[in-house]
Amino acid sequence: MSKLSNATSLGCLYLIPNTLGGEDRAIQLPRVIPTEILKQIASLKNWIVEDAKNARALLSAVNQITPLSNSLQSMQMNEWRGPQSKNKTGLKPHELLEPIMRGEDIGLMSEAGVPGVADPGAEIVYMAHQLGARVKPLVGPSSILLGLMASGLNGQCFSFQGYLPVDAAERSKRIKQLEQRSKQNHETQLWIETPYRNTAMLESCLGSLSSQTQLCIAVDLSLQSEWIWTAPVSEWQNRFSNPVAMNAVLKNRPAIFLMLA
Amino acid sequence: MSKLSNATSLGCLYLIPNTLGGEDRAIQLPRVIPTEILKQIASLKNWIVEDAKNARALLSAVNQITPLSNSLQSMQMNEWRGPQSKNKTGLKPHELLEPIMRGEDIGLMSEAGVPGVADPGAEIVYMAHQLGARVKPLVGPSSILLGLMASGLNGQCFSFQGYLPVDAAERSKRIKQLEQRSKQNHETQLWIETPYRNTAMLESCLGSLSSQTQLCIAVDLSLQSEWIWTAPVSEWQNRFSNPVAMNAVLKNRPAIFLMLA
Repeated sequence: MSKLSNATSLGCLYLIPNTLGGEDRAIQLPRVIPTEILKQIASLKNWIVEDAKNARALLSAVNQITPLSNSLQSMQMNEWRGPQSKNKTGLKPHELLEPIMRGEDIGLMSEAGVPGVADPGAEIVYMAHQLGARVKPLVGPSSILLGLMASGLNGQCFSFQGYLPVDAAERSKRIKQLEQRSKQNHETQLWIETPYRNTAMLESCLGSLSSQTQLCIAVDLSLQSEWIWTAPVSEWQNRFSNPVAMNAVLKNRPAIFLMLA
Repeated sequence: MSKLSNATSLGCLYLIPNTLGGEDRAIQLPRVIPTEILKQIASLKNWIVEDAKNARALLSAVNQITPLSNSLQSMQMNEWRGPQSKNKTGLKPHELLEPIMRGEDIGLMSEAGVPGVADPGAEIVYMAHQLGARVKPLVGPSSILLGLMASGLNGQCFSFQGYLPVDAAERSKRIKQLEQRSKQNHETQLWIETPYRNTAMLESCLGSLSSQTQLCIAVDLSLQSEWIWTAPVSEWQNRFSNPVAMNAVLKNRPAIFLMLA
């Protein structure tokens, strides 16, 4: 553990952005990941990733723009899906970070967007701080940030809640709680939903929220098919008066929901 | 107003990222803004910006990488610093968005990071939705997102609070409230401070928070001088036992504070 006192001899943990899914990644990359970050990605040999197949697909796309300095085959790629998951390797965060102790850099990547935000990876990052290693977050797409920018709702004070309950009654109750909290603190509330439940979520929102509460839904962010709309609940009720209309816009597309009461 | 019903004839409101300040912008751009976004920036003629001088400096730097299709002199650039500010032009959001009604695109840019998030611009975005125009958020650096990624704290549930009170007693009270909220909801709390008050903020944190609460401070994010550390308050107290040690790391550098109780 003598290396702990000398951070300069440790490797760095790079937090690598991924695309937000959909479409050809090689086409997407130039609009969602900066050039220098693509070069950084191409230079890394050691990886901790949420899903190896997904990570290899991203690296293949990067390779079309900036040739990888290591072949995909020679890369060391461990999966990590959070402390509660059965990680295939069975390794713990400090074991996964072993290359850093040898002075080698590691890339941490999740399946979509940035690691550790609405995605696994935070425990790995925390452990890197504990080891005294440098942690380097890199710029890339995040549906939370893009959705908040595009909503026109309050970006001075906001709160992200992850997933809401699946049960319809519980979900409505939670939506009302969030509306109350939004009203009290003038705080934008953000949450996500599994794409096939988007219509059920919108139905719950329109059935639970007050008519003047502002609702924004952003789908397919960063993709060509991106769709974003903010309006009072009353306008949503007029425009999306039935599940058919809702499905036409929301069905099976990744979405983020935002509300300001 | 006949154009309202036909969104395809309206222009688009592009939400343009800026650098996070410091250093030579032309050097920074390739690591914080994707190539296609630089091209998008270079193509725009109409601008709504927080500060015209700052916006011109960013556009000059973009011009070194991707030549602007309009000269800086021929651009239409209006300032907007929020509804409470005295905007030099005296124009209201729907007046600033007039080019969109003519079918022309507009770029919205704040002084640092992305517009509308801890920065002015949200009212302009909301008005664009009301006019029925397309709103297009573009990828770039945000200290909130980079700080959260790099903290290793909970990114499944978090809350951004903007600035805390300046008065020391009020600030301590607010920090304790946020600690309570963090504990109740397992929610990471994020806030910012004016750079010259960073040391006072850290003193308040170390004097107010419980010793096992996790604290992260990230300074100079995205810059070469970036510094990020997450540890329990007790470790912060050991490492930063006096204002001299705090100033050495924090003084006059843009910072974001994160906490998980």
